[in-house]
Amino acid sequence: MRRSIATVCLSGTLDDKLAAAAAAGFDGIELFENDLVVSPWSPAEVRSRCADLGLTIDLYQPFRDFEAVPARLDANLARASRKFDVMAGLGVDLMLVCSSVSPDAVDDDGLAASHLRLLATRAADRGMRIAYEALAWGRHVSTWDHSWRIVRQADHPALGLCLDSFHVLSRSTPVDGIADITPGRIFFLQLADAPRMRMDVLQWSRHHRLFPGQGSFDLPGFVGRVLDAGYTGPLSLEVFNDVFRQADPDRTAVDAMRSLVALEDLMGRGERLPAAPDLAGYAFTEFGVDGPAGSDLAKALAGLGFTLVGQHRSKPVQLWEEGGCRVVLNSAVVRPHATLSAVAVTSDDPRRSTARAAALKAPALPREHGPREADLTAVAAPDGTSVFFTSRGDAWRDDFLSTGDSAGDGAGLLAVDHVGLTQPFDHFDEAGLFYRGVLGLDRVTTEEYAAPFGLMRSRAYADAARRVRLALTVALLRRGEWAPAVAEPQHVAFATRDIFATAAAIGTPMLPVPDNYYDDLAARFALTDDLVDRLRRHGILYDRDASGGELFQLYTPIHGGRVFFEVVQRRGGYDGFGDANAPVRMAAHRHNRLDLPHPGAGGNRRR
Amino acid sequence: MRRSIATVCLSGTLDDKLAAAAAAGFDGIELFENDLVVSPWSPAEVRSRCADLGLTIDLYQPFRDFEAVPARLDANLARASRKFDVMAGLGVDLMLVCSSVSPDAVDDDGLAASHLRLLATRAADRGMRIAYEALAWGRHVSTWDHSWRIVRQADHPALGLCLDSFHVLSRSTPVDGIADITPGRIFFLQLADAPRMRMDVLQWSRHHRLFPGQGSFDLPGFVGRVLDAGYTGPLSLEVFNDVFRQADPDRTAVDAMRSLVALEDLMGRGERLPAAPDLAGYAFTEFGVDGPAGSDLAKALAGLGFTLVGQHRSKPVQLWEEGGCRVVLNSAVVRPHATLSAVAVTSDDPRRSTARAAALKAPALPREHGPREADLTAVAAPDGTSVFFTSRGDAWRDDFLSTGDSAGDGAGLLAVDHVGLTQPFDHFDEAGLFYRGVLGLDRVTTEEYAAPFGLMRSRAYADAARRVRLALTVALLRRGEWAPAVAEPQHVAFATRDIFATAAAIGTPMLPVPDNYYDDLAARFALTDDLVDRLRRHGILYDRDASGGELFQLYTPIHGGRVFFEVVQRRGGYDGFGDANAPVRMAAHRHNRLDLPHPGAGGNRRR
Repeated sequence: MRRSIATVCLSGTLDDKLAAAAAAGFDGIELFENDLVVSPWSPAEVRSRCADLGLTIDLYQPFRDFEAVPARLDANLARASRKFDVMAGLGVDLMLVCSSVSPDAVDDDGLAASHLRLLATRAADRGMRIAYEALAWGRHVSTWDHSWRIVRQADHPALGLCLDSFHVLSRSTPVDGIADITPGRIFFLQLADAPRMRMDVLQWSRHHRLFPGQGSFDLPGFVGRVLDAGYTGPLSLEVFNDVFRQADPDRTAVDAMRSLVALEDLMGRGERLPAAPDLAGYAFTEFGVDGPAGSDLAKALAGLGFTLVGQHRSKPVQLWEEGGCRVVLNSAVVRPHATLSAVAVTSDDPRRSTARAAALKAPALPREHGPREADLTAVAAPDGTSVFFTSRGDAWRDDFLSTGDSAGDGAGLLAVDHVGLTQPFDHFDEAGLFYRGVLGLDRVTTEEYAAPFGLMRSRAYADAARRVRLALTVALLRRGEWAPAVAEPQHVAFATRDIFATAAAIGTPMLPVPDNYYDDLAARFALTDDLVDRLRRHGILYDRDASGGELFQLYTPIHGGRVFFEVVQRRGGYDGFGDANAPVRMAAHRHNRLDLPHPGAGGNRRR
Repeated sequence: MRRSIATVCLSGTLDDKLAAAAAAGFDGIELFENDLVVSPWSPAEVRSRCADLGLTIDLYQPFRDFEAVPARLDANLARASRKFDVMAGLGVDLMLVCSSVSPDAVDDDGLAASHLRLLATRAADRGMRIAYEALAWGRHVSTWDHSWRIVRQADHPALGLCLDSFHVLSRSTPVDGIADITPGRIFFLQLADAPRMRMDVLQWSRHHRLFPGQGSFDLPGFVGRVLDAGYTGPLSLEVFNDVFRQADPDRTAVDAMRSLVALEDLMGRGERLPAAPDLAGYAFTEFGVDGPAGSDLAKALAGLGFTLVGQHRSKPVQLWEEGGCRVVLNSAVVRPHATLSAVAVTSDDPRRSTARAAALKAPALPREHGPREADLTAVAAPDGTSVFFTSRGDAWRDDFLSTGDSAGDGAGLLAVDHVGLTQPFDHFDEAGLFYRGVLGLDRVTTEEYAAPFGLMRSRAYADAARRVRLALTVALLRRGEWAPAVAEPQHVAFATRDIFATAAAIGTPMLPVPDNYYDDLAARFALTDDLVDRLRRHGILYDRDASGGELFQLYTPIHGGRVFFEVVQRRGGYDGFGDANAPVRMAAHRHNRLDLPHPGAGGNRRR
């Protein structure tokens, strides 16, 4: 299937947008009028530039407030005539006409049909066609079936429908009937996903659209019906999104292309992706550390019961282990702060995992290795994390020489429960689509919460067996000049069977938790005094879900300026991540860094 | 009147918030429960810290889902009892109970009243009181009059109302009846402004509240009625705002205090501000320039017909003049880019203007001056711009030695039409309140538009006589790593009586405007071919308002990396700023900087 993207999806001026769309492999574009208006290139020059880049111009859009505004019919036809001139220069033959929003528009289908027929006649005279679209907030025409009745009534070969998934799916109009639209009468298909939001539909549409797979709409179902109606045109993305409007267009275009590849796979149409292999869990997590951060993290791991079991054959890399948890400290990767530089997942078929990632436009990472070192394949995630695929055989461990020590029981840690990665502001939705698609995960939770330094959004993904869980977080607004929080913290959470035994093995609570938290916990959950005391003594955080599932959490301080560890115990099917406790943890981290004095204890130190 | 602020208005942990509230001069705080829960300070320590800072704790909030949830009454009373313990530690005697949102809440006013009466009895036993508040999205109780009926029915001296301007004014419930509430029964008053938005009221409340004077609500009218009902408690700000949640709390607290000072003045209660004197216009605008930027700007001014008429007696400062426009180039103020460092407005009473600014917490700027130099008073705006107040006598001109040249007709520029300042993201609403209050301006327009590199918001202010206009802009989202636009551009627009004569005097268009723009203009406005040709020839942008008022605009390129000039002609009462043309200007500036090649002209240069 041909893939197109509306220029309005991308930031920049037209030259930026065309280059980005071409580089990401799109076949064509929808030209948004404002992008042309501000360009110094003539229509013919734009046409020539697109041709050079291998892009077709599939649609010129939008033409507004045309139909059923009788007082302005002549002026509107004159306006259309000028736009046909522009289209001729561009070499594009299809114009989008969206349903009138003008207060002067008349509620008269017959009049609308006759106006559109007149416009289609003029278009046909120039070898052009008109695609009529019902805006979800159109004054009189706001549903796809209404626009289809008008198009049928107008009955002109140069007049057809434009269907936009947002306008259709944001309303409750049933979509089954789309499959019955006369073949050939859907002239154009625009795709956008979106989160479900309770707000004015116009604002929702203009600010919060997303690429397919990033929102909550049933895009496969919708597109399937359009294809059932015989549509053979491009799948074209039209996404108005505040973040994409100001993010690097080259990256947004790749994100957009990935969304279409994943959508086609979900629909079982077009090229299929290699199926996502089953995952057995996290094989290891790797931290890039410089000298001081390295010893800081090593000490933290030792405190959690880990043992240094291996030293890499050729690199300054240590392997720490406890139960099924392996942490690699890599001094060869040096960044300003300690960084969760890589995660490795055990795949039933690493080769297929890698092929799937490549098909989803994941950049492959070159991996240097010595003669006896495992040939791990890795791809780069949008947040810069390397993702390795390993086999069940753990061949990668041969890279390490044994220190002679072996991991004992430690503090009872069993395996990685989840990995938590704060995302760069511009790339949160991109990262979600990436990890979900590449690893074959489902979305588990989306939460928003007020943290001490601003609002946060958290979205978690996991495989069906809950062996690989991944929690992504992002600030709701990009951090500004006042940003005392840890910048983009990252963490690894380890599972334990008995949080109290683990806490006892660790000894003194690693991160002090306020007494006020426990007083509130007692009030909120009506826990027994004994349980609250035990939680308080060990600095364990607690959460409970609506079905009574429970989560227990222990945190370390921030290490290496950016990273921390968590220990969790899940009971009774708790499937979340304790987001309600995140502000407590974040404030505790801040106070721990500040060593905040107590009032009356002398000193008024602040920051 | 006592002034309080809810801790939820401010970013940071509790220690940050208390320090900021005290530094800004607040008398008290509302303690938001979550701020206490994450604090390592015990309630007694918080009490002690507040006492040290001179802050009272006026309210503990919120207690949720209490009334009319019969199945949980005992558990809720036990929960309240634990919160009373906390309040005793804090030394606060007033608890906010907001109307239930629980799906288990029953629609039974009698039951709600009896539950609240029971709670008030328990509170009274501890010497405490309950303020009951109708949330705008309460399940059964969502209006102030409904909450008042229940409080009357409960009839307990320890039970009264909390009125929150957002919950009241976001709904259409009439407010006149508030004045008839029994004196003494309004226990607490919370204030928030907000822009009118078409969205879910809970989301609107949680993300978009503003300080009084920054939104669209009639706060003076509302507060007046509450005071008429005999309310004598604090005016307390409770503002949930995504930006304030992550901005510097010290600055936010000052912004908050300014909003209360201005509100009390508007209401004619409490301390009155010195009235804003009439303004005669901009006396001068000053640019801070280093060497190269200085000659760049000097050349641009000469191109616009300005003459260098004065040299400062003691500083490397030039005075350029044309008609009533004066521009000062100051090489003593060196920043990375040329900067619109100061604006001077001619005030009928500079001393009173300064006193008003001081009362509105504007930081006064020290001004060094030599023996013959005018003693100009200046204050610092939130965006860093200095604001001078000068008298009609133009005494400040004595600071300059004449170059011997005098300003001729130049290109026909008459006076400064407006100044345009891009605001730092965190301080847009703060800046609006500041300029409006200090200069005594009204809000004229608020617009949002899609610019090439992201969405922009523009808000303009002017005095009633339209002698001082000021346009503030801000990116809707803070700029990120991909930010090819000019960072925070600034400009001065000069008025002309005849834009075509000015353009002819200037000669070649300074900033090329795309042909596509004129083609579109012809289609949009049905202008005569002759007019479009003249606009095109001179690179003049055009806008027309709904009443037929017209705006003509000419732009220079960006100078000194950040600033530009504009020439405008207004016809027929046009009162806006041509925001529809802003994206055209921004793209033109980008293309001008890039010297973008035309396709086929050889070369594929990009960025």
